[in-house]
Amino acid sequence: MEKINAVITGIGGYVPEDVLTNEDLCKMVDTTDEWIMSRVGIKERRILRGEGRGTSYMAIRAVKQLFEKTQVNPEDIEVVLFASTTPDYHFPMTASIIAYQTGCKNAMTFDMQGACAGFLYALETGSNYIRTGRYHKVLVVAGDKMTAITDYQDRTTCPLFGDGCGAVLLEPTTEEIGVMDVILRTDGIGFPHLFMKAGGSAYPPTHETIDRREHYVYQDGRTVFKYAVTSMADVAAEIAERNHLTQDDIAWIVPHQANLRIIDATAKRLGVPLEKVMINIQKYGNTSAGTIPLCLWEWEDKLKKGDNLILAAFGAGFTWGSIYLKWGYDGKKA
Amino acid sequence: MEKINAVITGIGGYVPEDVLTNEDLCKMVDTTDEWIMSRVGIKERRILRGEGRGTSYMAIRAVKQLFEKTQVNPEDIEVVLFASTTPDYHFPMTASIIAYQTGCKNAMTFDMQGACAGFLYALETGSNYIRTGRYHKVLVVAGDKMTAITDYQDRTTCPLFGDGCGAVLLEPTTEEIGVMDVILRTDGIGFPHLFMKAGGSAYPPTHETIDRREHYVYQDGRTVFKYAVTSMADVAAEIAERNHLTQDDIAWIVPHQANLRIIDATAKRLGVPLEKVMINIQKYGNTSAGTIPLCLWEWEDKLKKGDNLILAAFGAGFTWGSIYLKWGYDGKKA
Ligand SMILES: CC(C)(COP(=O)(O)OP(=O)(O)OC[C@H]1O[C@@H](n2cnc3c(N)ncnc32)[C@H](O)[C@@H]1OP(=O)(O)O)[C@@H](O)C(=O)NCCC(=O)NCCS
Ligand SMILES: CC(C)(COP(=O)(O)OP(=O)(O)OC[C@H]1O[C@@H](n2cnc3c(N)ncnc32)[C@H](O)[C@@H]1OP(=O)(O)O)[C@@H](O)C(=O)NCCC(=O)NCCS
Repeated sequence: MEKINAVITGIGGYVPEDVLTNEDLCKMVDTTDEWIMSRVGIKERRILRGEGRGTSYMAIRAVKQLFEKTQVNPEDIEVVLFASTTPDYHFPMTASIIAYQTGCKNAMTFDMQGACAGFLYALETGSNYIRTGRYHKVLVVAGDKMTAITDYQDRTTCPLFGDGCGAVLLEPTTEEIGVMDVILRTDGIGFPHLFMKAGGSAYPPTHETIDRREHYVYQDGRTVFKYAVTSMADVAAEIAERNHLTQDDIAWIVPHQANLRIIDATAKRLGVPLEKVMINIQKYGNTSAGTIPLCLWEWEDKLKKGDNLILAAFGAGFTWGSIYLKWGYDGKKA
Repeated sequence: MEKINAVITGIGGYVPEDVLTNEDLCKMVDTTDEWIMSRVGIKERRILRGEGRGTSYMAIRAVKQLFEKTQVNPEDIEVVLFASTTPDYHFPMTASIIAYQTGCKNAMTFDMQGACAGFLYALETGSNYIRTGRYHKVLVVAGDKMTAITDYQDRTTCPLFGDGCGAVLLEPTTEEIGVMDVILRTDGIGFPHLFMKAGGSAYPPTHETIDRREHYVYQDGRTVFKYAVTSMADVAAEIAERNHLTQDDIAWIVPHQANLRIIDATAKRLGVPLEKVMINIQKYGNTSAGTIPLCLWEWEDKLKKGDNLILAAFGAGFTWGSIYLKWGYDGKKA
């Protein structure tokens, strides 16, 4: 039995058209463009408006774009895996809605919750399906409608988040490309610093939980920052080292987009100049599970077969990790 | 490279002590023990009481029991996978809480949403981690606190659900035992018949969604029944046939416990007598992702190495499926 690698063979992405700028936010909470730009690095973010529109609205568009670009037949998809903190409903899973609306008639589907590291978790999970040799076309969809759980009266969190979704297709290969190495970590010590108190089985929704604004992201930003900045840089450095990748070997760093200062620290730690770091936080903010696939989507044209990519993310849990990808194809429109 | 199979090597389970009987329900809604027993087959169900107690309360106990029984060191666990419709919080994932509270310090963790077929989805996902040869100890935890999303003013759904959680340990083997074959299906056509309208990104919680009682299970029981009864029987028959298992080869059917009539129909379709069907619906009701692991947990003593088990489930999405397991060890206390 030959060793099978899982490789990304296509990407789609979607961000809503509506823009929420720092200027808009200044009218809603006591903040300034200067504070947000210097402390976080976000200029504007996209927000999904429209009654009844959940994250699937974006996911469906990302998947349809992927099918158009790759000319893959939706009926050949065997697994649709959707990573999100903001699924449309508690049940059924949003992956079943995405599959239904995009014609993936023969797929098994499930949602995954890995918070801001959700795409990394989903990529490793999808890759393990492929590596068994039993599955040949796995769709990994990841993204969030973070504005659904953002409190626009809380200036410490509302500038951070935006809406967006990406999708990648995974296929098997016997070439030495694709998902080469993975480090994924969890430490439950992070729980009290980043969570949403109500709405789950611990504190089901009541009029009181709504009045107490417990259906929104709570974040102790300073503590999360401290953990994020070291954990993301450490794990990215660890995966580079154990794969003997020097800064010259690394074509791109693809970091989770939560804070430009965290991204900077990760790049510095790897000794990689910012030109080789995918950064779109200024336009989209933190789209949680969406950030990394949306970076790959925007940079697809620039990628070449064999490029070494270091993906890294950090999020609630805490969960964090890094994936070493050897890119599988030359940028479509390059 | 030798072919690696994933095999269950230990089980834990937990149901809360508090019992809600049909007699109790008769005081809450217009129903009778006779109706519930004849239409569904449930006599009583367990309910998790206690402010702030989410599904993890049960999951942690199931996992601790598994560790005690198997003497596995929690620090050797590499993946903790939690399948549930009722995680404690929207984020972080409940798997990170379970891992933290049970000493799984070195595990990556994520939640999965596969509704009532969640255990089957999680078992296949965990098995794919094992089959790659990269992971050696994967914990698959599954269960629900369904009472958190059950409307005790709706007589058509409130008798159905209960709380409970199970956990299995997956390890690699080169023997021909473990997860032998899998069929998992999704059809988004099921969406309008079984869902929870509010609380996700499509309809975030408001005072109005609470007043409209939209944070509870909605089910068009008759339609779901029709799909469930044929889909579960069909898929179980399909997996038996393609593995050349006659009724005599099947040691046990392990069906999702939603309705005794659906279980009966599945057994009849396979020509297997009820003595060989695991049934505990009368005691626990429908614990969603918990039903199948809780059956395995209760029947563990009776299982023998090499026994052929047919697992089958159906749930929201619709999602459904069947797994053929060749059991890996002789019942611990047998
Ligand atoms: C959230 C975050 C941007 C805040 O930046 P920070 O430099 O840590 O800021 P602090 O929270 O320490 O607040 C500094 C001051 O700015 C104020 N402030 C907070 N938000 C503000 C805003 N939007 N506008 C103006 N001032 C603000 C605070 O009140 C505080 O004032 P004080 O010193 O008088 O108390 C930063 O902590 C962060 O990025 N955290 C990690 C995010 C992350 O990675 N999340 C994980 C993945 S989702
Ligand atoms: C829910 C379920 C038990 C209802 O049984 P059913 O035989 O289909 O019953 P119906 O919904 O057709 O209702 C029959 C009658 O009983 C009544 N009824 C419903 N609940 C009742 C209750 N708790 N007590 C007394 N009468 C009740 C109905 O109002 C209806 O009365 P009507 O005929 O006067 O309108 C059954 O449909 C079922 O099991 N569905 C599938 C569940 C499942 O598999 N779910 C998927 C996994 S979660």
